Amino acid sequence: MPKIHVCLTPALISLFDLSDKRVVVTDVLRATSAMVTGLAHGVASIRPVSTADEAKRWEELGYLGAAERDGKVVDGFSFGNSPFAYMGEEVQGKKIALTTTNGTKAIQLSEGALEIMAAGFVNLEATVLHCAKFEEDVLVHCAGWKDQFNIEDTLFAGAMVFHLEQHGFRCADDAGMAAKMLYEQTRNDLFGFLKNSSHYHRLSRLGIEKDIEYCLKENVVDAVGIIRNGELVKA
Amino acid sequence: MPKIHVCLTPALISLFDLSDKRVVVTDVLRATSAMVTGLAHGVASIRPVSTADEAKRWEELGYLGAAERDGKVVDGFSFGNSPFAYMGEEVQGKKIALTTTNGTKAIQLSEGALEIMAAGFVNLEATVLHCAKFEEDVLVHCAGWKDQFNIEDTLFAGAMVFHLEQHGFRCADDAGMAAKMLYEQTRNDLFGFLKNSSHYHRLSRLGIEKDIEYCLKENVVDAVGIIRNGELVKA
Repeated sequence: MPKIHVCLTPALISLFDLSDKRVVVTDVLRATSAMVTGLAHGVASIRPVSTADEAKRWEELGYLGAAERDGKVVDGFSFGNSPFAYMGEEVQGKKIALTTTNGTKAIQLSEGALEIMAAGFVNLEATVLHCAKFEEDVLVHCAGWKDQFNIEDTLFAGAMVFHLEQHGFRCADDAGMAAKMLYEQTRNDLFGFLKNSSHYHRLSRLGIEKDIEYCLKENVVDAVGIIRNGELVKA
Repeated sequence: MPKIHVCLTPALISLFDLSDKRVVVTDVLRATSAMVTGLAHGVASIRPVSTADEAKRWEELGYLGAAERDGKVVDGFSFGNSPFAYMGEEVQGKKIALTTTNGTKAIQLSEGALEIMAAGFVNLEATVLHCAKFEEDVLVHCAGWKDQFNIEDTLFAGAMVFHLEQHGFRCADDAGMAAKMLYEQTRNDLFGFLKNSSHYHRLSRLGIEKDIEYCLKENVVDAVGIIRNGELVKA
């Protein structure tokens, strides 16, 4: 019986052996939600890079550069990680080089896994169904916030545990059990829950309420995002 | 308004500035529960040490040595971290040098804090009332299991958030919010919850059901445990 593991922040990823696991990286607000939205809307690929300078250098090779730090688009770039920037004609068929505060780092730290996916609530079901096709263990790697635990990524991990258990997976650790409990308690109104929490100000300060509402909707797109040769593509 | 922070495992403690905080270290099963039980039953002091060899060396200076690894008493010692070993005449008035898998390490990694306490459900109220006497922030440092998140320490952190909020503290982070939600959901029957969880086998395998039942009871003793000169003593 395959197992599902949960890593609550990138600072804990070294505690896991990734070599026999499919890793699902999530940065719900907003990097991985934006990425899979892009793939679903015709973006050719998204290359996670470490710095804004690196994203600029990829522009010279024909990529669109995108950069976000601390929730804001970096100066000199036309977009960052708002999912609504990944839906229009201007990104259609394009390759994007993207750097973000947390999400791209978590993808890079997942190196060595059997397979690396990026996912969020917006493609929850598609990701669950993809994982359930295989026999190997799954690990959800929460991008967190600057190595700290965050609630929205943990809720997504809980959603993965909740649904993969229905496909015969067994929850492997206390983190997965706790995440599932939190998801079950809040799943009927994820946006309302986050909005009423005292921690919402971290996000609402940035004026991205519409983005948040979008990123907390389940199963809006059916693309599965998988890393191949250093770039996220549609499976 | 003072804040309460939660650090879910020792692997994350470096993310916090401890210098302006009172740190409450918890290793519910069983190190810190046993320690404060000992203080309440007349143990003079408990010195957390890193290795069994070190505990042995303190025996030469008149201490009782105690050592636990992976839930078992280390060979050559008469006791480890079972709370029931900290209640009898043989420990009365004695100094103890103790090493455990997780708890003593978390205490050592809390160095630099304004004050370091050790606590568990058994002295929850006493610890809350002690913290509420001061204006400074409190951080609950969960000992976890070999740097991994564990549910019982997180539930205790949630209990601290729950009660300190009633004394005017404000929850500082997502980890504290999540921990409090988990505690509110399980507080009416912590033992039943843990026993029915699939993770109980980690502990029940060791034949310590009585210990677990004791460690999950709230407010059994009223001692507050504080580190002074490298040893835990009654405040």
